[in-house]
Amino acid sequence: MSNIRGRFQKAAGEDATKYTASIPFDWRLYPYDIAGSIVHADMLAKQGIITRKDAKTIIAGLESIKKDIDAGKFDFKIELEDIHMNVEARLIEKVGEVGRKLHTARSRNDQVALDMRLFAGVSLLSTRKALQDLQTALVDLAEANKKVVLPGYTHLQPAQPVLLAHHLLAYFEMLQRDLERFTDCFKHTMVLPLGSGALAGVSYAIDRDYVAEQLGFGEISRNSIDAVSDRDFILEYESAASICMMHLSRLAEELVIWSSPAFGFIEIDDAYATGSSIMPQKKNPDVAELSRGKTGRVYGNLMGMLTTMKALPLAYDRDMQEDKEGFFDTVDTLLSTLEVFTGMVSTVHVNAENMRRALDKGYILATDVADYLVKKGETFRSAHGIVGKLVSFAVAKDKTLAELSLAEYKKFSPLFAKDVLNITVESSLASRNVPGGTAPAQVRKALARAKRMLTDK
Amino acid sequence: MSNIRGRFQKAAGEDATKYTASIPFDWRLYPYDIAGSIVHADMLAKQGIITRKDAKTIIAGLESIKKDIDAGKFDFKIELEDIHMNVEARLIEKVGEVGRKLHTARSRNDQVALDMRLFAGVSLLSTRKALQDLQTALVDLAEANKKVVLPGYTHLQPAQPVLLAHHLLAYFEMLQRDLERFTDCFKHTMVLPLGSGALAGVSYAIDRDYVAEQLGFGEISRNSIDAVSDRDFILEYESAASICMMHLSRLAEELVIWSSPAFGFIEIDDAYATGSSIMPQKKNPDVAELSRGKTGRVYGNLMGMLTTMKALPLAYDRDMQEDKEGFFDTVDTLLSTLEVFTGMVSTVHVNAENMRRALDKGYILATDVADYLVKKGETFRSAHGIVGKLVSFAVAKDKTLAELSLAEYKKFSPLFAKDVLNITVESSLASRNVPGGTAPAQVRKALARAKRMLTDK
Amino acid sequence: MSNIRGRFQKAAGEDATKYTASIPFDWRLYPYDIAGSIVHADMLAKQGIITRKDAKTIIAGLESIKKDIDAGKFDFKIELEDIHMNVEARLIEKVGEVGRKLHTARSRNDQVALDMRLFAGVSLLSTRKALQDLQTALVDLAEANKKVVLPGYTHLQPAQPVLLAHHLLAYFEMLQRDLERFTDCFKHTMVLPLGSGALAGVSYAIDRDYVAEQLGFGEISRNSIDAVSDRDFILEYESAASICMMHLSRLAEELVIWSSPAFGFIEIDDAYATGSSIMPQKKNPDVAELSRGKTGRVYGNLMGMLTTMKALPLAYDRDMQEDKEGFFDTVDTLLSTLEVFTGMVSTVHVNAENMRRALDKGYILATDVADYLVKKGETFRSAHGIVGKLVSFAVAKDKTLAELSLAEYKKFSPLFAKDVLNITVESSLASRNVPGGTAPAQVRKALARAKRMLTDK
Amino acid sequence: MSNIRGRFQKAAGEDATKYTASIPFDWRLYPYDIAGSIVHADMLAKQGIITRKDAKTIIAGLESIKKDIDAGKFDFKIELEDIHMNVEARLIEKVGEVGRKLHTARSRNDQVALDMRLFAGVSLLSTRKALQDLQTALVDLAEANKKVVLPGYTHLQPAQPVLLAHHLLAYFEMLQRDLERFTDCFKHTMVLPLGSGALAGVSYAIDRDYVAEQLGFGEISRNSIDAVSDRDFILEYESAASICMMHLSRLAEELVIWSSPAFGFIEIDDAYATGSSIMPQKKNPDVAELSRGKTGRVYGNLMGMLTTMKALPLAYDRDMQEDKEGFFDTVDTLLSTLEVFTGMVSTVHVNAENMRRALDKGYILATDVADYLVKKGETFRSAHGIVGKLVSFAVAKDKTLAELSLAEYKKFSPLFAKDVLNITVESSLASRNVPGGTAPAQVRKALARAKRMLTDK
Repeated sequence: MSNIRGRFQKAAGEDATKYTASIPFDWRLYPYDIAGSIVHADMLAKQGIITRKDAKTIIAGLESIKKDIDAGKFDFKIELEDIHMNVEARLIEKVGEVGRKLHTARSRNDQVALDMRLFAGVSLLSTRKALQDLQTALVDLAEANKKVVLPGYTHLQPAQPVLLAHHLLAYFEMLQRDLERFTDCFKHTMVLPLGSGALAGVSYAIDRDYVAEQLGFGEISRNSIDAVSDRDFILEYESAASICMMHLSRLAEELVIWSSPAFGFIEIDDAYATGSSIMPQKKNPDVAELSRGKTGRVYGNLMGMLTTMKALPLAYDRDMQEDKEGFFDTVDTLLSTLEVFTGMVSTVHVNAENMRRALDKGYILATDVADYLVKKGETFRSAHGIVGKLVSFAVAKDKTLAELSLAEYKKFSPLFAKDVLNITVESSLASRNVPGGTAPAQVRKALARAKRMLTDK
Repeated sequence: MSNIRGRFQKAAGEDATKYTASIPFDWRLYPYDIAGSIVHADMLAKQGIITRKDAKTIIAGLESIKKDIDAGKFDFKIELEDIHMNVEARLIEKVGEVGRKLHTARSRNDQVALDMRLFAGVSLLSTRKALQDLQTALVDLAEANKKVVLPGYTHLQPAQPVLLAHHLLAYFEMLQRDLERFTDCFKHTMVLPLGSGALAGVSYAIDRDYVAEQLGFGEISRNSIDAVSDRDFILEYESAASICMMHLSRLAEELVIWSSPAFGFIEIDDAYATGSSIMPQKKNPDVAELSRGKTGRVYGNLMGMLTTMKALPLAYDRDMQEDKEGFFDTVDTLLSTLEVFTGMVSTVHVNAENMRRALDKGYILATDVADYLVKKGETFRSAHGIVGKLVSFAVAKDKTLAELSLAEYKKFSPLFAKDVLNITVESSLASRNVPGGTAPAQVRKALARAKRMLTDK
Repeated sequence: MSNIRGRFQKAAGEDATKYTASIPFDWRLYPYDIAGSIVHADMLAKQGIITRKDAKTIIAGLESIKKDIDAGKFDFKIELEDIHMNVEARLIEKVGEVGRKLHTARSRNDQVALDMRLFAGVSLLSTRKALQDLQTALVDLAEANKKVVLPGYTHLQPAQPVLLAHHLLAYFEMLQRDLERFTDCFKHTMVLPLGSGALAGVSYAIDRDYVAEQLGFGEISRNSIDAVSDRDFILEYESAASICMMHLSRLAEELVIWSSPAFGFIEIDDAYATGSSIMPQKKNPDVAELSRGKTGRVYGNLMGMLTTMKALPLAYDRDMQEDKEGFFDTVDTLLSTLEVFTGMVSTVHVNAENMRRALDKGYILATDVADYLVKKGETFRSAHGIVGKLVSFAVAKDKTLAELSLAEYKKFSPLFAKDVLNITVESSLASRNVPGGTAPAQVRKALARAKRMLTDK
Repeated sequence: MSNIRGRFQKAAGEDATKYTASIPFDWRLYPYDIAGSIVHADMLAKQGIITRKDAKTIIAGLESIKKDIDAGKFDFKIELEDIHMNVEARLIEKVGEVGRKLHTARSRNDQVALDMRLFAGVSLLSTRKALQDLQTALVDLAEANKKVVLPGYTHLQPAQPVLLAHHLLAYFEMLQRDLERFTDCFKHTMVLPLGSGALAGVSYAIDRDYVAEQLGFGEISRNSIDAVSDRDFILEYESAASICMMHLSRLAEELVIWSSPAFGFIEIDDAYATGSSIMPQKKNPDVAELSRGKTGRVYGNLMGMLTTMKALPLAYDRDMQEDKEGFFDTVDTLLSTLEVFTGMVSTVHVNAENMRRALDKGYILATDVADYLVKKGETFRSAHGIVGKLVSFAVAKDKTLAELSLAEYKKFSPLFAKDVLNITVESSLASRNVPGGTAPAQVRKALARAKRMLTDK
């Protein structure tokens, strides 16, 4: 029977125990739980709430438990419900009665909030690192293919020529926004809840600022009821993770499409491709597909946690125990996805020739022809209409725009002159020379800037 | 290196292997995978595609592997990706070359669809059983408290008196609809995909109907491309489970509110309540709260799977591997929640006195007074207005309706006569004597009907 | 001030009125609300609760209101909250005091449940019709392209040759499952809630079976508390709609990919394509993309409604007013998407040549070569490995399998004989002659069956 | 036929037009669209791309269109698809040929991104204001009830006494975090996309910084492909709104529970309560319930948009048109909910007596008794166990802790002395004198701080 059921006549049912126990998943919080307890004990001694000697005994006990768990030598017990009770019970076994003092001036409500914030803080640092690693891989790939041109697509239809480097840097920007969101989230996460007790604060002269400082928190929570009821930091991480997975799913989709033979723009390295159990010829972009699929679980975890928190009266309700598994899964999924993308992007083979070939088909320079007319004095909307008809004519003749004669051009507007034949993929690229545009000069600047951001990080 | 990478120059990267392997969770499909393989081998022999002797060797090997896994003596290997490859590789180790014939005339694409459908089918049977157990507990509780009356609420405001049995049977009805949905889902699930190969069917003269019959499937799939791409049965289960968890969350909410001292309608048995680490007096309805919180994960799994399946081109894509963990979690969550509710409902203590007391406060018979006026000739809408003013008057006087004198009644309508004082909780209940109403006579019938449905099941 | 605020000292605030009024969207329920009221009045007369004369007056008044609304001549008032009160108030204006009798023996709680079920029932019939129209378009397209072959894909990599008709029939099957789900849902929807009153039943001798019969309901609800609290039928529709939109999003994805020039398998008709404001050459598959995008809102509506219903105590709570907008939007989105798909599929241009060309590249017959070896005596797993190496060899030589010589084949297995050169796309197709397979004979049967299902509907 | 279909042979079908047109909802962007176009025209002139005279004509035309729309005198046409084309077409009607120059150097892709960012920016400012208004209402209510004490709850079970002001300030803190998130979001939103063209940048010497400055943007986007593909700012708003609605749903839940007669802690003002159509006595907290219900739609909109954006290849795809309705609905819902809460909180009647009465029942000072023992030398865990048994004893005797004699106390621990009888609600409150705790001194500080934050805003 658990050591907190003093007022109960009988033990919890086996089904209830199994249903409510969190130790099967929250054991993972042990480094944070123990770190928090060590600082708590130290502070209790500093404040004279327990003796320094007791604190030393407790801290030594906790450190030894930490080592046991690290070494896989700890027997987690489901009847002790959670990581806090498992550690406390073992501490009492190890150090005797004095261990019963550890829970002075705290509650599991503020303790678990502490553990989760520490876990989230560490996860946020890992996430930032993983994002920057992938950004680096993208920049390196861009750098290595600086001159490669491909059709930029809208609606999966060829639109205008762009540099591959420019296209890859679009993902760099997305990840940069992710990075900012996770950085904001880190700030919001590192707020110390300990000292809030069950919900009302504690009746001991504790030093919350000291605890905050020792554990690396930037602030202390300002309202005890809120502090034990708040899981915004988890929802914030899960929201940012959902957006980030959405970005990765877009990249995944492109990798899948680009590695389909019809496109043939890239080849995924053997290390990131898999075979078929039945079709010997298959080389499948499974890593990209699976990451695209995993977007679902990250969205689902967000939706699950939002649902769980809906309409809960203050302060702590047991529903909130459901904050853990989904969050752990989101962190694990995002980190492993970022890591495997870094490897996949670093090793992808770019088939520049196929990209180039895709440019030559189609009418990808039509906007340039319209802009040509504008520069000769036509209004844009009319120029657009003229070139629309020109394209329609060329399609009917089964010709590309480059294959049309000047005479044919002139049928559509008297403003066409010989220099219309100078419009090329290269002139098109070069002309988009505005900040953020795909002109080589702009992309060079953007690459340099990206590299600076990665080294200044 | 996996045995299906014949065309690759190098092994999958360690990160990719870890990322894509499903064995950490799909090992759980082993009974279904092996059962399917046994019938497949048997059918191959029946059709002369392999010899009967080979089939016997293969089947004996598979049965022995099943025993090993049952006994925890099987070493699942992550580099073998999934349950299918783990079993096949071990089979070849056990029985030699002949094991390499098992995968004739099938693909992992139709094999995994088979495994998932078998797992879903078995889960559906368990779900049905668990639903009926909870229905039984509700009926028993209703039966044991047949005469208990409580305020029926709308907007959490007392509305009209109802029998507790009537209130409990509302949940019986919800669960009955759940049961029907899972029954529909079972029918849609038991459609054999095997024989669809990778996506196009197989080029061997297999007997799909035989396999279906042996494995308990009611039908065979009619289009091979669809059969390997379809996960509707999982989405259907997850939808039905979401609705069912929503129902349980409503019951949970009521149990939480009713066991709050302000209401005091029930007391959760000690076996389903938990204590506080800091507040010694606490007896918390944690099981109910946690089940309410778990609604989130079940919704999240549904949303995750819907997201995963969105916009996947035919036929199988690796994204679909994400069908498993969320589905397993939904099944486990729903089953354990139904089970723990059955225990909790069976042992809950009803405090009929507090329910009765709550009836006496307030103006719960106001509708009856309005209906009284209608029966005396007033239009309903006017009667409603008159009684509204009467209640307002009583509130100002700090009286209940029962405490008003006939003279006071008459101030509001000349139609009030002495018999207005005969309106009681009992007369109110008895008057709602329409099919589905709370009149004791109706509730008796409903209870009898519910019991019949449970025995006829 | 609303006519149901008898007990209040002051009117609802303007902000609260605007916030809570549902008339801006529930006006749309008027045909159902009025139809329900007409049958209700008729039944009240039949049962002697009101006079036949009063009923006639009321019914005539309601019919005249219906005509006014049909003609756009009705002034909906926000201070009257909802469609029920708007109609009732106008009825009283039109027919005088007798109109105040209409609300006898019912509550808005059972009335709104009735309206929503009638609306859902009608929507379900439209949905079934729209599904069958799209099925017909798919069958017609399949029929018109009976001999067209394309690469079947898994992982967006060419896998095995399939008939286009077979591919299209995969969608027929998905829609057939949708149809079944909506049919189940119709049965669950057509359960009459009227007679449940506010939550406890009513105290008048009404005839619920008569009302059910008049309004086309198959059953009456069996528990009054449940009947006013239940929105399962909406969740069921929204779940089925989510799965259906998921199916359509897969088709949309394929239409987008197939109409990209790199594939060039189809051309969307001009009527279903749009241009660009800047790029004159663009012809974008906007309808397909937008329908893919609209999957999101349908999922979102489901998630919204599940969230809304979570943890609501019985019986009716105002939260449930949120059942409407999302449901209306889901019905509208699904119906318009099915309709626009029917048009788009009916007019799509199939480019059989490009599909054929895509078959010739690649190693799409590799499985057939492996199956060839199996039939010569090799085990399947070994055959798979041999052909994997063969493909690898061919890739290195930049040859297709058809371009390899028998001598080259023989390097990989002595079992290869001259007849290996007979393996063709056609032989591959024909060999998959199992029920559900892509062999022309099977697809012919499947087409015939599909047509039969559509005419038997 | 739309003016951008130069290359098409026929008009869009009526069904496709209706399906794809966004003007039924994006007309609402007109002030932003026109403001953007005015600055665009001005910049084109400044850069010499069009003449100053043309710019003036265009700007005057746009201003006149703005006035027409403001006055409800603009005829939006569905065949012109969207707000951009409607305005441009009307401009050409109004000012002639020169109007055809407006679309020079931009695309609808960057234009719609601009409009949405401007709309989001304005919405963010309104959201911030509405949050602070509600914070003010909470602070005022706290101030007006500074001495009111109620049971703090965990698990909806009385836990420890807290000041009502402390409880209300918990919501202040939640809203403060919301405020920070929306502030972060504002910064991420105000990044100018114009100048990105269709996806590659534009081929005119535009001045993006000038446009940014004129329109109040803090930055310009750095990658044109990203700029037209990015809807993170919408997802960020929707995530923050979901969390904020979750907070409000918790407050709503408490208002509903607290106004239920069993609690009777508050009475919602008549202006924010509604009646029943059938039960004359009812006074329902509909506003609170409905806001709780609306949490669903805000979550749903987030899920919808996340789903829509999943796996879209770069750059713009038509799926992204689905960014609008859900976002508009989220903004409208959040703003109206915050506003109605401000009114409801400002007028709520606090029933301090009922709160006090709820404290006297139960064993809410049990933690204080345990802490008492700790201060006498007991370890906390043992003290907790002792008091658990004490409570159990009192329950059996049907006594409160205050009703126990010292002799009875001493049965459980020799450490109990006379001063245990001094433990009161007031001593309990005062003892929780840590930063963030409920001690009156701490709450005074917290209130002062909150007021400071609101005035410094």
